[in-house]
Amino acid sequence: MDNIRFTDINITGGFWKEKQAMAVNTTAKAVYDRFAETHRFSALECKWKEGEPNRPHIFWDSDVAKWIEGVAYMLEKQELPELEAICDEAIANIINNADENGYFNSHFLVTEQDKRFTFRSHHELYCAGHLIEAAIAYDKATGKGDLLKLMCKYADYIERIFKIEDSAAFRTPGHPELELALVKLYRYTGEKRYLELSKYFIDERGCNDKDKAVLDIFNLLYTQDEIPMRDRETIEGHCVRALYLYAAAVDIAEEYGDKELLAACKRVFDNIEKKRLYITGSVGSTHIGEAFTPDYHLPARTAYTETCAAISLAMFSGRMARLLHEGKYADMVERAIYNGVLSGISMDGRGFFYENPLEIDPDFNSVNPSTVEQERYPITQRVEVFDCSCCPPNMVRFIPSIADYMYSTSGDTLYVHQYMDSVCENFAKLTMKTNYPADGIIHISGHTDMTKIALRIPGWCKHFELNADYTLEKGYAYIDVTGGVDITLKLDMPVMLINPNRRIHDYAGRVAVQRGPVVYCIEGVDNGKDLRAMAIDPKGEFSLGENEFILPNLMTKGFRPAENDELYYDSQEAYEEVALKFIPYYAFANRGESEMQVWVLKK
Amino acid sequence: MDNIRFTDINITGGFWKEKQAMAVNTTAKAVYDRFAETHRFSALECKWKEGEPNRPHIFWDSDVAKWIEGVAYMLEKQELPELEAICDEAIANIINNADENGYFNSHFLVTEQDKRFTFRSHHELYCAGHLIEAAIAYDKATGKGDLLKLMCKYADYIERIFKIEDSAAFRTPGHPELELALVKLYRYTGEKRYLELSKYFIDERGCNDKDKAVLDIFNLLYTQDEIPMRDRETIEGHCVRALYLYAAAVDIAEEYGDKELLAACKRVFDNIEKKRLYITGSVGSTHIGEAFTPDYHLPARTAYTETCAAISLAMFSGRMARLLHEGKYADMVERAIYNGVLSGISMDGRGFFYENPLEIDPDFNSVNPSTVEQERYPITQRVEVFDCSCCPPNMVRFIPSIADYMYSTSGDTLYVHQYMDSVCENFAKLTMKTNYPADGIIHISGHTDMTKIALRIPGWCKHFELNADYTLEKGYAYIDVTGGVDITLKLDMPVMLINPNRRIHDYAGRVAVQRGPVVYCIEGVDNGKDLRAMAIDPKGEFSLGENEFILPNLMTKGFRPAENDELYYDSQEAYEEVALKFIPYYAFANRGESEMQVWVLKK
Repeated sequence: MDNIRFTDINITGGFWKEKQAMAVNTTAKAVYDRFAETHRFSALECKWKEGEPNRPHIFWDSDVAKWIEGVAYMLEKQELPELEAICDEAIANIINNADENGYFNSHFLVTEQDKRFTFRSHHELYCAGHLIEAAIAYDKATGKGDLLKLMCKYADYIERIFKIEDSAAFRTPGHPELELALVKLYRYTGEKRYLELSKYFIDERGCNDKDKAVLDIFNLLYTQDEIPMRDRETIEGHCVRALYLYAAAVDIAEEYGDKELLAACKRVFDNIEKKRLYITGSVGSTHIGEAFTPDYHLPARTAYTETCAAISLAMFSGRMARLLHEGKYADMVERAIYNGVLSGISMDGRGFFYENPLEIDPDFNSVNPSTVEQERYPITQRVEVFDCSCCPPNMVRFIPSIADYMYSTSGDTLYVHQYMDSVCENFAKLTMKTNYPADGIIHISGHTDMTKIALRIPGWCKHFELNADYTLEKGYAYIDVTGGVDITLKLDMPVMLINPNRRIHDYAGRVAVQRGPVVYCIEGVDNGKDLRAMAIDPKGEFSLGENEFILPNLMTKGFRPAENDELYYDSQEAYEEVALKFIPYYAFANRGESEMQVWVLKK
Repeated sequence: MDNIRFTDINITGGFWKEKQAMAVNTTAKAVYDRFAETHRFSALECKWKEGEPNRPHIFWDSDVAKWIEGVAYMLEKQELPELEAICDEAIANIINNADENGYFNSHFLVTEQDKRFTFRSHHELYCAGHLIEAAIAYDKATGKGDLLKLMCKYADYIERIFKIEDSAAFRTPGHPELELALVKLYRYTGEKRYLELSKYFIDERGCNDKDKAVLDIFNLLYTQDEIPMRDRETIEGHCVRALYLYAAAVDIAEEYGDKELLAACKRVFDNIEKKRLYITGSVGSTHIGEAFTPDYHLPARTAYTETCAAISLAMFSGRMARLLHEGKYADMVERAIYNGVLSGISMDGRGFFYENPLEIDPDFNSVNPSTVEQERYPITQRVEVFDCSCCPPNMVRFIPSIADYMYSTSGDTLYVHQYMDSVCENFAKLTMKTNYPADGIIHISGHTDMTKIALRIPGWCKHFELNADYTLEKGYAYIDVTGGVDITLKLDMPVMLINPNRRIHDYAGRVAVQRGPVVYCIEGVDNGKDLRAMAIDPKGEFSLGENEFILPNLMTKGFRPAENDELYYDSQEAYEEVALKFIPYYAFANRGESEMQVWVLKK
């Protein structure tokens, strides 16, 4: 299933070409500069001494590793000598400071030398996982295999300590990530012990008293330890932990044909899709534990919806799509990548949101010294680096490898999950021409060894045309391509008003505006103040406006309640008509602080 | 102005007769039982020793004092030997344990003997104020003057320490209350020094470094110390502190003809009325500091809106009404007493809310161990006693004295501010027959020495009929009554849909249902779940339903979005029509926990 990756595909135009150019030309260096300033790179030298400033943090290695992985993905497509040199230096530091077991951790090697594998919450195996992913990517892109060699040794060491000897103070990673990295390492090296170690971590999770000993129920849920994975009915706890783990679980289910584990993954996916998902394809309703909350609890203004949570939801859902060929999985990927993922990065590629709220109301966010707010609100403007800066380097690796989500094969069928202007050269040679999602027209031509192509018909699409016979099954249109590929798919892409389920109390009476997979919002900078009181005519027309943020803005008639001196009044509510401008949600907060609303009143 | 009080008036029927019967027959004893159990009464014996349990709390004396004051008000109208005996015993304990200066404080006398008048935040003068109010009430009701005598001595002592010697560690009360009690004491005893001491506290507040020394800006606002009272433009900080203080400020402005102080009171009132008021006549948007928040910040679900804040708003506004004869002041009293005050007590008279939210959503209030809520919500069911149990005894004294708010005189005019079925015997002998606010028909007959009667025409009333000639001025209809009083006033009382100002973002798109002064709400126990998504037709008819909670319920057509399996969907939203039942807001949470909404969607 792992047979058509972004390495086989060149993005040749359209939406993602712009985003990839931004990532290569701006984001990679900008994130490096911030990481260098904040000592994340120099920490790899392992020279820090007790009492000095800039103590290496437990998760800094993962930040650097994701950055190296992202640069490796860029190096697949172009030469970037400056960035490659940075990688080489960082990798040399890692190799020089690793111990004889392959163990490397810039925190534990200098701060708590005797505490290796003692604190489950200290991200040690999480960092190892990211280093493994970086090593694989860098070896593949550059042929420089030293880090990979080291990481294989490190993985062997982890296998010995955790599985063979069971001599660590805990049994499974406190923050999942290593599980999916080990599957990657197996698939890249062919060494099955890595797959088995990953399965061991999946099997042991929630099943052993060693991990549970120090945890209360809050933390058991937080770290995915309260029940065995195969017993899961709902998704709970820390979003990114949960979704990295389920991503690995899909891999394990696939590799071992583990139906019980796959069934749990399906239940968990459905729980998200039907009850715990923001319309932006992000998850995580609360900052407390960065966690899922009860069904239908999806507040807009206090939404936590971490950028990494949207990325990890795409990772989990993309694996489900490749394995199961049901449209809902690739629909979820699409929802995430065009909304909750991309909102995490500014249009100039330099600024990042960790949290991505669906409503901003700066007047009431501001702290009044007499009246400290009882709620906690996400920040309203992107920043260049966070103390916990996992999201920026996740973007550095996600955007260059976005085409990973396009294709997969199964039997005699080539599945097309996502539409991007591109050329794919593998056992297929396919050219896809499209402005998607600026419009819904997609041409695919060329040839493939497969006899069928299955095109995802997005869940949001009510009408489409295809210039070929097809059969529709679970969200995919299956077309015979034994005579060659020359397909034109036209997806109707009208502006839609999306209703929330009545059980989501936060948005009752409101609608969201969506066109294709892209969710829109209104901002104060365009539309003035009191956006929560602004209404649209549910039968009103929309027109496409300028392409201020790659995709067209949307214009429609809006109604703003008239000013009134009274706080409460029983006269007929008076409205003024205004031209209301919607911009893509991913583009909010690129023009200074102002109000923002995804869920808009219906008049 | 202080010339027609509840002592001159007998409530003879209707709404308040029921409430007064409840207070006398149930509430007084129920609150006593809880206070006795929690050692508030035995603390007056001053026998507590370090190391023992039930250390007397700094504000316990005020709880007992308010209770005695309330019982005294009841004793004005009937014999209640059991309650009077409790008062006598409590008063005896106070007298026996007071020192030679008249000083009594059940906390400081046994716990921190050497710390008298050291901690401004320790409610010492607040307790003194309540004891003075109790002493006056008890003397007037029973003729037993021992406590009053003691309290005069105590007031003299306070004058010496705080004003003459200025030898305390602070200069003005940390929690205002004594200021208004001293005005009462002056008016009852005729001793002008008490009035002057009150004015001294008003004048010194926010003007002296002694009080400000230990306070940061948050606490300066909290305790009303950040600026001199006459400079106030907005109302800030702790609601009850603020409103007790402004109530006293109106008294001082009246007694001294202090136009500057009165102007500040007017500005503060307008700031509340136009920008910081809940529709229920309560105030205080946040539990942090129990405080006012910025203009238009009036969240429903997290509303703090303490019962005592609504009571103190009535106290402040009632004084303004008596002094200024503008309808908006007595309108405010009315809004408070029928809504945010009465919601503080259960229909059976035994349970109390400290906080009175405008929305309850139990599904999302409940704490999920994985996802501790980031917001703090008020409790959803009334309880019999709180640790900080100021509200229950405030109700014990407020309900029996409610007729205080009915009448005042000025020059040759008798003002009628509130309508209650009653007989008033003073220099007037007036019988008022009415079911108000069950309907808007009021008959007033009898005679008065005044030549004019001015009837308040409530702000909510758009049409009324009067069987006499009148001139309308600032919300009052002035009628010549030199030939005797035989007035019939008919106030139209249709059901109204109230719009919120567009700047109150929390209720945008929603309306509140009000009939006369009474705000209504919907509850889950009548209307099922997902009340936030329930809509009413803004042009729909209402009918009066049964009188389940003294006043009629209201029935109208409602629309509930149909169940939908999808979390988000773009089909036309389907509705089922339901019969929607509104009950008076004051009656919410009397039938078990369920959802509650004041602000209901418009369809």
